[in-house]
Amino acid sequence: MIPRYSRPEMVKIWEPETRFQIWFEIEAHATDALADLEVVPKEAAKAIWEKGGFDVARIDEIEAEVKHDVIAFLTSVAEHVGEPARFMHQGMTSSDVLDTCLAVQLARASDILIADLDKLLEAIKRRAYEHKMTPTIGRSHGIHAEPVTFGLKLAQAYAEFARNRERLIAARAEIATCAISGAVGTFANIDPRVEAYVAEKMGLTVEPVSTQVIPRDRHAMFFAVLGVIASSVERLATEVRHLQRTEVLEAEEYFSPGQKGSSAMPHKRNPVLTENLTGLARLVRGYVTPALENVALWHERDISHSSVERMIGPDATVTLDFALARLTGVIDKLLVYPARMQKNLDRMGGLVHSQRVLLALTQAGISREDSYRIVQRNAMKVWESDGQLSLLELLKADPQVTAAISAAELEEKFDLDYHLKHVDTIFARVFG
Amino acid sequence: MIPRYSRPEMVKIWEPETRFQIWFEIEAHATDALADLEVVPKEAAKAIWEKGGFDVARIDEIEAEVKHDVIAFLTSVAEHVGEPARFMHQGMTSSDVLDTCLAVQLARASDILIADLDKLLEAIKRRAYEHKMTPTIGRSHGIHAEPVTFGLKLAQAYAEFARNRERLIAARAEIATCAISGAVGTFANIDPRVEAYVAEKMGLTVEPVSTQVIPRDRHAMFFAVLGVIASSVERLATEVRHLQRTEVLEAEEYFSPGQKGSSAMPHKRNPVLTENLTGLARLVRGYVTPALENVALWHERDISHSSVERMIGPDATVTLDFALARLTGVIDKLLVYPARMQKNLDRMGGLVHSQRVLLALTQAGISREDSYRIVQRNAMKVWESDGQLSLLELLKADPQVTAAISAAELEEKFDLDYHLKHVDTIFARVFG
Amino acid sequence: MIPRYSRPEMVKIWEPETRFQIWFEIEAHATDALADLEVVPKEAAKAIWEKGGFDVARIDEIEAEVKHDVIAFLTSVAEHVGEPARFMHQGMTSSDVLDTCLAVQLARASDILIADLDKLLEAIKRRAYEHKMTPTIGRSHGIHAEPVTFGLKLAQAYAEFARNRERLIAARAEIATCAISGAVGTFANIDPRVEAYVAEKMGLTVEPVSTQVIPRDRHAMFFAVLGVIASSVERLATEVRHLQRTEVLEAEEYFSPGQKGSSAMPHKRNPVLTENLTGLARLVRGYVTPALENVALWHERDISHSSVERMIGPDATVTLDFALARLTGVIDKLLVYPARMQKNLDRMGGLVHSQRVLLALTQAGISREDSYRIVQRNAMKVWESDGQLSLLELLKADPQVTAAISAAELEEKFDLDYHLKHVDTIFARVFG
Amino acid sequence: MIPRYSRPEMVKIWEPETRFQIWFEIEAHATDALADLEVVPKEAAKAIWEKGGFDVARIDEIEAEVKHDVIAFLTSVAEHVGEPARFMHQGMTSSDVLDTCLAVQLARASDILIADLDKLLEAIKRRAYEHKMTPTIGRSHGIHAEPVTFGLKLAQAYAEFARNRERLIAARAEIATCAISGAVGTFANIDPRVEAYVAEKMGLTVEPVSTQVIPRDRHAMFFAVLGVIASSVERLATEVRHLQRTEVLEAEEYFSPGQKGSSAMPHKRNPVLTENLTGLARLVRGYVTPALENVALWHERDISHSSVERMIGPDATVTLDFALARLTGVIDKLLVYPARMQKNLDRMGGLVHSQRVLLALTQAGISREDSYRIVQRNAMKVWESDGQLSLLELLKADPQVTAAISAAELEEKFDLDYHLKHVDTIFARVFG
Repeated sequence: MIPRYSRPEMVKIWEPETRFQIWFEIEAHATDALADLEVVPKEAAKAIWEKGGFDVARIDEIEAEVKHDVIAFLTSVAEHVGEPARFMHQGMTSSDVLDTCLAVQLARASDILIADLDKLLEAIKRRAYEHKMTPTIGRSHGIHAEPVTFGLKLAQAYAEFARNRERLIAARAEIATCAISGAVGTFANIDPRVEAYVAEKMGLTVEPVSTQVIPRDRHAMFFAVLGVIASSVERLATEVRHLQRTEVLEAEEYFSPGQKGSSAMPHKRNPVLTENLTGLARLVRGYVTPALENVALWHERDISHSSVERMIGPDATVTLDFALARLTGVIDKLLVYPARMQKNLDRMGGLVHSQRVLLALTQAGISREDSYRIVQRNAMKVWESDGQLSLLELLKADPQVTAAISAAELEEKFDLDYHLKHVDTIFARVFG
Repeated sequence: MIPRYSRPEMVKIWEPETRFQIWFEIEAHATDALADLEVVPKEAAKAIWEKGGFDVARIDEIEAEVKHDVIAFLTSVAEHVGEPARFMHQGMTSSDVLDTCLAVQLARASDILIADLDKLLEAIKRRAYEHKMTPTIGRSHGIHAEPVTFGLKLAQAYAEFARNRERLIAARAEIATCAISGAVGTFANIDPRVEAYVAEKMGLTVEPVSTQVIPRDRHAMFFAVLGVIASSVERLATEVRHLQRTEVLEAEEYFSPGQKGSSAMPHKRNPVLTENLTGLARLVRGYVTPALENVALWHERDISHSSVERMIGPDATVTLDFALARLTGVIDKLLVYPARMQKNLDRMGGLVHSQRVLLALTQAGISREDSYRIVQRNAMKVWESDGQLSLLELLKADPQVTAAISAAELEEKFDLDYHLKHVDTIFARVFG
Repeated sequence: MIPRYSRPEMVKIWEPETRFQIWFEIEAHATDALADLEVVPKEAAKAIWEKGGFDVARIDEIEAEVKHDVIAFLTSVAEHVGEPARFMHQGMTSSDVLDTCLAVQLARASDILIADLDKLLEAIKRRAYEHKMTPTIGRSHGIHAEPVTFGLKLAQAYAEFARNRERLIAARAEIATCAISGAVGTFANIDPRVEAYVAEKMGLTVEPVSTQVIPRDRHAMFFAVLGVIASSVERLATEVRHLQRTEVLEAEEYFSPGQKGSSAMPHKRNPVLTENLTGLARLVRGYVTPALENVALWHERDISHSSVERMIGPDATVTLDFALARLTGVIDKLLVYPARMQKNLDRMGGLVHSQRVLLALTQAGISREDSYRIVQRNAMKVWESDGQLSLLELLKADPQVTAAISAAELEEKFDLDYHLKHVDTIFARVFG
Repeated sequence: MIPRYSRPEMVKIWEPETRFQIWFEIEAHATDALADLEVVPKEAAKAIWEKGGFDVARIDEIEAEVKHDVIAFLTSVAEHVGEPARFMHQGMTSSDVLDTCLAVQLARASDILIADLDKLLEAIKRRAYEHKMTPTIGRSHGIHAEPVTFGLKLAQAYAEFARNRERLIAARAEIATCAISGAVGTFANIDPRVEAYVAEKMGLTVEPVSTQVIPRDRHAMFFAVLGVIASSVERLATEVRHLQRTEVLEAEEYFSPGQKGSSAMPHKRNPVLTENLTGLARLVRGYVTPALENVALWHERDISHSSVERMIGPDATVTLDFALARLTGVIDKLLVYPARMQKNLDRMGGLVHSQRVLLALTQAGISREDSYRIVQRNAMKVWESDGQLSLLELLKADPQVTAAISAAELEEKFDLDYHLKHVDTIFARVFG
């Protein structure tokens, strides 16, 4: 997490102030529940809300001595609350506070990321409809294949990010659990009703069984989902980078008036945002493995997961938030060049229609193998002419072809609209 | 995937014979649908089912020449079917066959893995109830904390693997889609109804939008889930390895009569199965990153994902299947030593009850900080005596303690059953 | 490791037959050394070489009972050697055999990989000199930058793989150590001179301190180096994939006469080999993390590394061997199109010379910022004309330019050879 | 990189101030070299050093407009230097500055890390000699094996970190290169002598061939080495965690007077530093894969590596620096309990001597298989008695044993010193 790739709302979730505020709320709600159960005096619970507070600098100071952050926090709060503070944290363990807090932070982070995805989906959808019927060449292996539309490309991206949205909602549910189960999770010193109460107040569900800590398979799953989303970011970013290549130039990242592409070469307009997104995707993916390694804690718990989460909690969510917002901006303002798309589509002398001729020959009674050979023979000539020859004209001059298909029928096989007849079907599937 | 860590049923899914058989079914069903739509003759469709077949060796031979596996397969089938074979694969592309086949294979692999999880869950549940009330020391940081039961440890494992079962079901749904959309996914040369028909016949759902290939975010998610499950395997395996340590020895892997632990040291009984599981978990986790890197294919598709999937498809599923079965065996036959658990529980001179005394002092009006200091002071003496001193006796002799709590009350704080009073609650949450 | 991506020589290293043969040699040499030290009779040592042997099927059979592979092997050998067999393995532990064997296998695998790199370097060098002066456009961000030569691109690849060769030689030295130190590595029951003797016979160095096992940081380093080499494979493969794109088409993978690019589209010629290499690189990189996780074995050793190495030992070396050989073939037979390179170089209306004009304006006394603005202003017009306008002509018509530089001087700034004047310097640096 | 896991000296390397200072030096040295070559006036070069400077806030301001950090920097410097500033950066490209700066930063970071390793090695060596002859049980699979000394355990760690030091020196050499080769690395607009001059001034070697950027296989190798070192940190940390387990307690992290182990359980003394190190190791390992993915840049360069390096450059070096310093502290102050080591060594009733008896029986003419059975039979009885029975006594009572070995001879097989006779040999190998 560095300022360059951060947005304030997500950063705020991970600031000490926010963390201690969540700790405070957990402790105060727990004390309320304990008061309801008559374990502690109602006045104590009230005093915590009324006089309670903490001081970040003071916490740091105490922690330097006791080397335990929750104890430092509790001491700082006690300095504000006074005597009734001793009723706080009754029967609880640090993990109850830390893990429930992390759940709140990750749930809030998820909400921002879901909102990010919504904005991205909206931008993709708008541009998809705008270019629903803009013809462009479809490419497999980087080689011209058959025509598609630019809208279809975006519909694919939409479906992918809609899946990611579903995954993230599931991942949010995985980590939004509350554990207030005391040392080694037995509830020996704290009634399970405290957990239920705090869970409800903090917008979480109850963790069915904790071992003092919330089990880390939940967090592993969460970070794995962020890794998948980052990989989808990379896919769409890579598409833009390809489209902006000098020789292709079917689309371009928006280039603002004052912007400079290169300190040395004034002519440059580089896809720097999507290259940046490619790198950010590598980072978010890189956090998946440490999260997976965090699962196998020793016995009821060890604390090896903590340093990992202190880093990747902010790093993964802040970076992905930034990436999703940046990608939304790229799509939103993407410069699209339909004329160039058409020009590229035409540049291969009609080769993109080869399959239809193959099928027509097959239908006309020629074996699949022979049909393939006939078409490939003519296609290779066009290929070698770099699109200067026309496949249609060559086929019209090939006696094996003309023996099977008429010139008029052949011409019909080179119709662009033929390829676009199911765009509506696909859009209906994707956008409903 | 090596025989040592493989089970035949899962291996079979990935054999060439199985793959070609699935290809054949996809092609034959597609031809049926094409016949229904009157694109090809009904007789042709019938002939494929009746005369159709393939020859693995022959396919290899043809592929060596044409360097394209689906073309080689189609040629081999054509050699069996004869002339009507030219109606096969009409308007389809290789990816339609390959990706739909992979979906069938991964769905079948998922079914085996789900059954594996069911057996594991059953074994864990049985042993959990068997040891529901077997007291044992709970440990945080590898250090004695407070009492739990061995059944609770297993209940935690049960809950974790039950979550993994849900994740796997979701992951199965992600990858069980059928794409028959032709070149670059436009349905230009194949009616979408063919896709719907084949999907239904193969037990899949329709892929809403494919780009000739099924999007790889689905597969990334699938392999990420396998990585999470593997990490849970590691967690439970690590628990067993710890319990079997010479100094702990609360449980042991079953050691069969003829077994030898070491070629040099005849006294050894090593937790080799769970160590092996730890290694297998590393392997399955290692396949997650390549699967994530597979997402960002170029444009409508490239084929870089293919070599990755040819390896990790079998490697990840076969290894995880083997690991789950091995773990089930370990849990099923685990030698559990309640007497030793009790002995370990007692060895720290009652230190494990320190928290209750802390809380009692707080309740008796002493500040949290002072209470902590009082208990820690006595606890450290016990600690340094290596459990030879008794915390209870020391506290009874501490005037600051006795001023606040009576001896009888103190004794009550050292009651083991106190810690187990919510075991039923937790079991009800986990096992319903 | 699957046959599709394997070559026989490397596969052979990992076959059971080879492994047992190496075990046999280690045991037999060790017995020789023990005989020299008069720990065992010289006749016994002789008998092992003379009557010694093993039977793979029989070993499997015994292992099924004793569940220990080295004991099974020793038993099988004993069945051949008879009574003197009891002098084998005196004071040794299984790890002495297993780890030393792995060292031999990895060293042999390294030798093959080094030879692979030599062939690759040779192919790259040959093609680099062939195209030393073939002009082509250099690209940053996928956007035309300034001219380079195709030979320079290959010189860069050569330097990178030469570095990889050095790394691999260092990595080989890391893992080529012999440990015969007995249980927990103390030499209590085996004289260190046995280790020195076996090391020398097996072509290894002595492991200074083993803990029964050879420390796994060595293997982690080894697999990390394979991961770096795989990443370099991906870089060169990606370059070819880009060059083969329809719109670029400056080079192409060799396309054999019978080859078919697509089952549906007869016109396709796809860069399938380099796409395949991209996937193989992901696989080899994926093995790095499990190897790193293998380092932290418990105490003197645990066996969790074993399953990982049984898989990634073969998988990583076989896959990388295959990839290097395939890449060598791709470079060796690469179809290079200098005419197309020139055409692409010219297509941007001279924009690639913008920097030189910028520098000339600066030299002529205009500030860097103003110079940049002047050149960018004209460059953008050319850019927007898609290379139809000429930067040179526009500059000649710009009064701010002509006030500072003469037309003749301007023309000189558009000289291609200017960019190639240091090709010799760079070749001298790279090829010596 | 978060303050909690950071040390100031390493953090300073990555601060904007430091980066811009290095940029300034590169640019100023380059201008000196250009002046020597009479490309720019000597006065200009002099003016840069004399009047040159930059303002971090101002650079941020300019970058917000031009979206290019090097241009922003140059503009800020120009505001200080005035008119002669136009002679700066002549023929250079941003990458010349950025990549050479990164080389300087990584080289400086390496120097700190090498110094860290030196301190760690010193601490390990001191404690190794202190406990050279402190007997302790060696464990394989977590199970008692045979005696070693605590000094031997540390000697193993020493050898491992000495290897890591060599690797880091090699990795430093890999990344300490200077590239001043201009756009696409052709030296078209900048004389190679400028590169040689700047390299020498900045303490770097010349990059033989750059593609505008320094090739990223160098950085991949660098971060991979950090990942290996982190894995070694994890190994030693894991050893300490094991030794501190309640049941083992052979060593403990230093526990400072004011420290609190648990907010709930006052008796706890947890190995939190080494658990923390385990987590930090996961983080540093996690940065290896993004670094490997950075290698395959497109064509002469893209900028996807940049965001990755802006994060992992600081994150990996700061975290590893912190971890090495923390580990040094742990080893330096480690509380070692020889009495407990001896007690653990004795607790298995002499089982740890089983191998010697096995060998003695073999030497006495009994077959290896029979000897194994005899010893295992008695060993299992001791095992099942939890060390209450004595292996020596049982063997003395076993007629098959006594028929082969005398009681006196048997007793000699249970001598602890026998196992330590080669400690000197091993220390000589490791410490020279």
